[in-house]
This record gives sequence, C-alpha cells and structure tokens, in this order.
Amino acid sequence: MTAELIFVGTELLLGDILNTNAQYLSQQLAALGVSVLHQSVVGDNAERLADALRLALSRSDLVLTTGGLGPTKDDLTKEVAAEVCGLELALHEESLSAMKSFFAAKGVQMPQSNEKQAYLPKGAVIFRNTNGTAPGCAMETGGKWILILPGPPREMKAMFRLSALPFLRRFSDSVLVSRTVRTFGIGESAMAERVSDLLDLENPTVAPYAKSGEALLRVTAKAETAEKAEALIAPVLQQIDARLHDVIYGVDVGSIEEAAVALLKEKKLTVATAESATAGLVAKRLTDLPGTSEVFHCGIVSYSDDIKARLLGVDETTLQTQTAVCEDVAVQMALGALRQSGAHLAVSITGLAGPGRDELGRDAGLAYIAMTDGETLWKNKITTGHTEGDCRDYNRTVFASRVLFEIYRYAAAYPRKAAFGSPLNESLRKERTK
Amino acid sequence: MTAELIFVGTELLLGDILNTNAQYLSQQLAALGVSVLHQSVVGDNAERLADALRLALSRSDLVLTTGGLGPTKDDLTKEVAAEVCGLELALHEESLSAMKSFFAAKGVQMPQSNEKQAYLPKGAVIFRNTNGTAPGCAMETGGKWILILPGPPREMKAMFRLSALPFLRRFSDSVLVSRTVRTFGIGESAMAERVSDLLDLENPTVAPYAKSGEALLRVTAKAETAEKAEALIAPVLQQIDARLHDVIYGVDVGSIEEAAVALLKEKKLTVATAESATAGLVAKRLTDLPGTSEVFHCGIVSYSDDIKARLLGVDETTLQTQTAVCEDVAVQMALGALRQSGAHLAVSITGLAGPGRDELGRDAGLAYIAMTDGETLWKNKITTGHTEGDCRDYNRTVFASRVLFEIYRYAAAYPRKAAFGSPLNESLRKERTK
Repeated sequence: MTAELIFVGTELLLGDILNTNAQYLSQQLAALGVSVLHQSVVGDNAERLADALRLALSRSDLVLTTGGLGPTKDDLTKEVAAEVCGLELALHEESLSAMKSFFAAKGVQMPQSNEKQAYLPKGAVIFRNTNGTAPGCAMETGGKWILILPGPPREMKAMFRLSALPFLRRFSDSVLVSRTVRTFGIGESAMAERVSDLLDLENPTVAPYAKSGEALLRVTAKAETAEKAEALIAPVLQQIDARLHDVIYGVDVGSIEEAAVALLKEKKLTVATAESATAGLVAKRLTDLPGTSEVFHCGIVSYSDDIKARLLGVDETTLQTQTAVCEDVAVQMALGALRQSGAHLAVSITGLAGPGRDELGRDAGLAYIAMTDGETLWKNKITTGHTEGDCRDYNRTVFASRVLFEIYRYAAAYPRKAAFGSPLNESLRKERTK
Repeated sequence: MTAELIFVGTELLLGDILNTNAQYLSQQLAALGVSVLHQSVVGDNAERLADALRLALSRSDLVLTTGGLGPTKDDLTKEVAAEVCGLELALHEESLSAMKSFFAAKGVQMPQSNEKQAYLPKGAVIFRNTNGTAPGCAMETGGKWILILPGPPREMKAMFRLSALPFLRRFSDSVLVSRTVRTFGIGESAMAERVSDLLDLENPTVAPYAKSGEALLRVTAKAETAEKAEALIAPVLQQIDARLHDVIYGVDVGSIEEAAVALLKEKKLTVATAESATAGLVAKRLTDLPGTSEVFHCGIVSYSDDIKARLLGVDETTLQTQTAVCEDVAVQMALGALRQSGAHLAVSITGLAGPGRDELGRDAGLAYIAMTDGETLWKNKITTGHTEGDCRDYNRTVFASRVLFEIYRYAAAYPRKAAFGSPLNESLRKERTK
C-alpha cells in the first residue's frame, strides 16, 4: 500500500509558511503501515496541480492533498481533483448548513464567498471540518483514491483524525510499529558507530538521526499485527540499550522534558529554575505538557546582574570580578532559586547564547549549569561549539536540553544522591539558608 | 528562471523530522527572483531519486537538493546526481584536508567512513561546508545545473549563504522584493476583506496568510532592480496602512517580540514579566534576539499559587475565592513584578492553556493580562476559542503574542500613557509600594 502527499499552496513555494502538515501526515501514514514514497508541493496553479495528481495516481495507490480548499478564487484543489477523477461538483447541503452554524457559533453571518466550499464532487465520501469551514473528501478513480484535506494544520489534523484515518484503515494490510530511542550528550555518528551492525537490519530497521542537538535511533518493524511487530522490535531494543545505556533517557518519550517531568512526578519531586541565557525556555519546556504544576512551582529569569543579586542573592563582587557567566554565579543562582521556591531541587544556567564573543573574549556556546537540593550540589561547564551566525537559537535549545537532561538524571538517581552530586560544603549550606 | 527543490531522506517521508530546509530555500530563491514551481521529497532510494532528478531537469532550469551527503551507505544523493549528469566521482584533496582539520579542531580523529564525503563529481563547482564535513557542489548537465547541499539545516544554510547564493546570482535576471505587513488581533479573512481589491493586483501581488494566530499580508513586486521593485511596492503599502493601521505592528519585522523590543530600546524602557500560563514563553521570546538585556531584566514564572503569593505578593484570599485565573490576580502579579524588578513596565498573564476545562468549568483559551508602569494600569481578558485537543501549544503562543503586542502598543504610545492605560487607583498604588 503506497501513498503520495501533495501539498498545494504558493505560500509554501515562496517559503511564507513552514510545511508542518508534511511531518504530521507522514507520521500518521507510517503508523498505518502505508508507505509514503513521494511528497510534492505545487502552487495554486490548475495545470501543475493536475499534472502532479496524475503523476501521483500513476505510481501510488493513495493520494492525499492539503490546501487549496479556501473560499477565494485561487483555491482550486477540489475543482482540479474532481476534474482529474472525472467527477462533477454539486452543492452538499449538509456541509453548507454545517458551515452556516460554524459562523453562527461565532455570532457572525457566513460570507457569501464561503458557499463555494460546500460544492463537493458527486459520489465522494465527505469529511466534515470540525475546526473550520472547508469540508474535505475522498474521491475514487480507477480503484485509486484521492483524499483532499484543508491546509490549516488545526483543521487538517482534526479532519484526518476524525474522518480520514477511519476511512484509510480499510486499506491498511500491515502495521508499521516504531520505537524511538532518545539519547543526549552523544553525537549522531558516535551513536551510530556503537550500533553500526544493527543499521543493516531489514525488519526491524534501525535508523539514526539527529534533532536539535540530540541523537535518536528509530527502530521500525512491519508485520501483520502490532503484537508481531513488537516482538520483532523487543530484542533489538535490548541490544541498543546494552550499548547506549549511559546516554539513553527514554524510548518513545516525546522529549527530554517529558521524560524528566514523568520521573519528577513518579518520585514526587518539585523543581525550580533560575535561568539567564535560556531566559525562560527551560520553564516553558517543563510546562509544555499539561499537569506539570505538581512538579514545577517557580522559575526566575534573572537576565540582568541586578536581578541575579536582588532576587537570587548572587554575590555582587563575584558578578563584577568573574562576570555573570561563571561557575560561582551558577551555583549561587541555584541556591537562590532553592531558597526562593522551597522546591526539592533547583537548577540554574548562565551562559553565552551568542552570537559573538563576550567582553572576556569567550566564544558563544559556553554555559555553566548548577543543581542543588540543599544537600548535594552538582555543577558543570558545557560548550556547544556553535559560536557564530545562527547559533543563538541552537545554543539556547541545547543549553535548556542539558538542564532538562540533568534534572532527568537527578530524578532517575533519586534518592541515591551520592550517585549524583557531591555534598554541599559548609559555606554553601550557610549561603543556602542566608 | 525556474528552480525545483528535491529533499532527500527517508526520515522526511517517515515524518521523523520537520522539513525546515524547504521554507529556507524557498524564501532565498524567491528573494533572488527565481521561481520555485515544484518541491519534492524522496527517500534514500537511488532509483526514485534518479527519477526525481530527471523529472526536475526536464521542467526546471535549476535543481537544488538537500540531504543524503552523509558518510553512511544510505547517503547517495551525490552519487546518483553525478550519474544522472554523467560525471565521475574523484577524491577532492582540498575537501579531504578541510574535513580532517574540522575533526582536528574538535580534538577528534576523522573516522574512516567520512572519507567518502570527499569524493566529488569531476568538474563540479565545490561548495565548502563550514559547519560540518560533507561538501556540497554544483554540477552542470545540458545547460542546467544541479546543486547539492547537506541536509542538516545549520550546514545547509551556511553553505547556501557562503557558496550557493553567490553562485546562483549569475542566473538571476530579475529581482523579487517582498514586504510583509504584520498584524495582530484580526483574523485572516477579516483582514483580507479590508484589502480585497488589492488582492487582484498583479505586480506587486498582495497575498494574505495566517501564521500562529497572526494575520499577515505579503506584498511582492518583480522588477529589473530592487529600486524599481520598491517603487512598485511603496504606494500599495500606503493603501494597506490606511486600511489596517489599527492592527499593524510592523512591516518586515521578524515578529511581535522584535517590534516590541525595538520600540522599548528606542524609548529606553525596561520591562519585567510575571507569567503563569505561558510559563516563560514571553521572557524567552523577548530574548530570542541578542542584545535585549538593556530592556529586559527580569521574569518570574509563578506557576503555583504559593509562588504567586510569596514572590509576587498576590493576595491568598483572592487566589482561593477567584482561583489563579482572574483579573485581580493578573493585576496583582503585574504589580508584584514591577515591585520585584524595578522595571518601567511590568506585564502579567494568567490563564488556561488547556486542554480541557478548569474546576469552574471554564474552557481552555481564557487568559487575563495586566500591565502597569506604576501610574497607569491596563488589563484585558482574552479568549482564543481553542479549547480542545492540540490547543495548548496554540493557546500559549497566542497568549504570549498578545502580551508582547500590548508591550508593543504601550511602547508605541509612550509617553502618551493616557492614550493607553487608565490611572492606577489609590489602593493599587499602595499595593504597588507595599
């Protein structure tokens, strides 16, 4: 079973928008065991769209399109697809009334222009749009199907989940199951070398890839049932774990923050953050998923020296003599955050996101991280090696990921603190309770 | 001059990664006046890649590829492209030594497997990789060119900027100049209706689109020189401004945060944030660009009621009787942040990012925002209308954008405060200085 994705919209060809639909649909179809061998993007042009649809039908069983279902005259996906399939458009009363009530719910009258969206190919399976106006549909031609979906991700995703997915299940002859092993602190090639022999496997396949400073391994098995696929994957996961145990933080966890938050909840730990270079990114990521309030209480973004001193009690002499980017400041920030928050654990980061050098000539990509629970202290200096150009975003992401990874490691070791930090010395204990 | 983009990588077809290269290259080529009429994605498969390259060469003058230049055996873009062009690969000594020094700089010896990357098509124009190992190149066939670039965005972007762009300039016969008018607080269709007649213009073209809760208008003119294109755009921008002045926050500004920070700098204002629902996102976005420390000193992420009371002095009775999501708490959070930071302006937000309802049965997407400079107070209740499913990320983005937009409006009105907030009443003044 093969499928092909066609994304329609001049705004994609101009780079006005990022094509997030491509990733979403690819993941969804992969999970269905449908092989996507081609994706393409065409503009709002009838001829090129027709060519793309015909080419796709010639080499794939299924064609999914997104975009070009709007009310304006340059929206023509539905019209072109219907023509390619030799179908006529007719007013679909049910869709029209659904659209009218959609506007009514907002207390707005439906603009005349939207009526166009209620015209659909005769005999098509209609997909209702629960998050917008344009309905989608599935139309058949010569035993193959074209599914057209709206462009706005919120509308497309909801329609895919509620209508297209149930529709597609009938075509799926096998199941593809994937497990993603997530690591932190090791490069993609170094990771790949540790499992190089596994990369030649055919079922399951093992594929390394890198994503915003992390190295991941995707293990994918194809079988008649999910159970059989799982059975193929299990032994391979064991081998991977044996070789990469020290850097793996999770399998099929969405992200480091997700893994960290899950452990904090499990061990009933609370955390506070004191951020300089990342300026709230750690706090934001800790709360990306709902229900983190039980583990995350407080974050302080101390962007200026003045605030580091005033809110976190960082020693002003230290700030003057060593600048805000040094180990002592990181340690004092963490102690300050612990004091202010009353959390079990406080983490801090101060660094140079860049681009460029600081007044001491130090390159961007340098950061100091500290973490303390009042008894043990852990601290570290990191360098990302990204010093110029568009390094700022990358560095802040990696800085934040490192902090989240250390929170994860602390929670994983907890209560075996010795396994993690070193005891807080006397002066720092005083510092803590000052 | 037409170009076609081919993105190579099974990880794209599986949806493992988001194709950000597509947007970057599309924007860059559009700016060069090169029309991109097709984009496609193929996996690490020699046959399908060869077909894609031949099809692209048959209908476009230029073909750019990204990905498939890695050291592993499934990386074959260079090999396939060379074959399609009838070129042989040969060891390129200069690239090999560049790669060796790249590893040396990291204090690592170059793995044997990387040597493959130094084999390049004979007669090709070599593009050096300043952020990684794999060189790219441009190869000619029948008067058309294939440019191959690495897949990792940091490597691809640097190589495009430093090598591919200068190379491509020679082909560009005309210039495309675009201006993006950014608005906030108005829907895409409502915005489009206000300028509906302009949407039919041919040069410049005016295209509306929506992006994470914002409505944008892209004005694009094609001409022999940038000056001539600018001249075509100017009068249209004036008309747009006349019709959308109340909601426009900038033209060609990267984002609301960029516009807000620029104004804060210009008017020498400092801002502090107190975030609950957005949990650091406002602070993070304020500092996305370098050099914000002069305007942003401090952010407090008060995720728990306890911290709202302890760090920001929010009245506990209010928290108990009205919950943390109410106007009074927002106002007290802003006053607390002003007190703690000593900034000119403090903004706060408390809300329900969702998904789902709160204990009072209120839908997600509800937030209260407050802003004060100690003399004037501005407050507002917002609802995004996104209550279910994947609404959390959207709501937090829109919440943060709204806060940033209000900071922008305050700074724009400054020092005409009357034009903005209402005077702070007595009890609140006390509150402020308590």
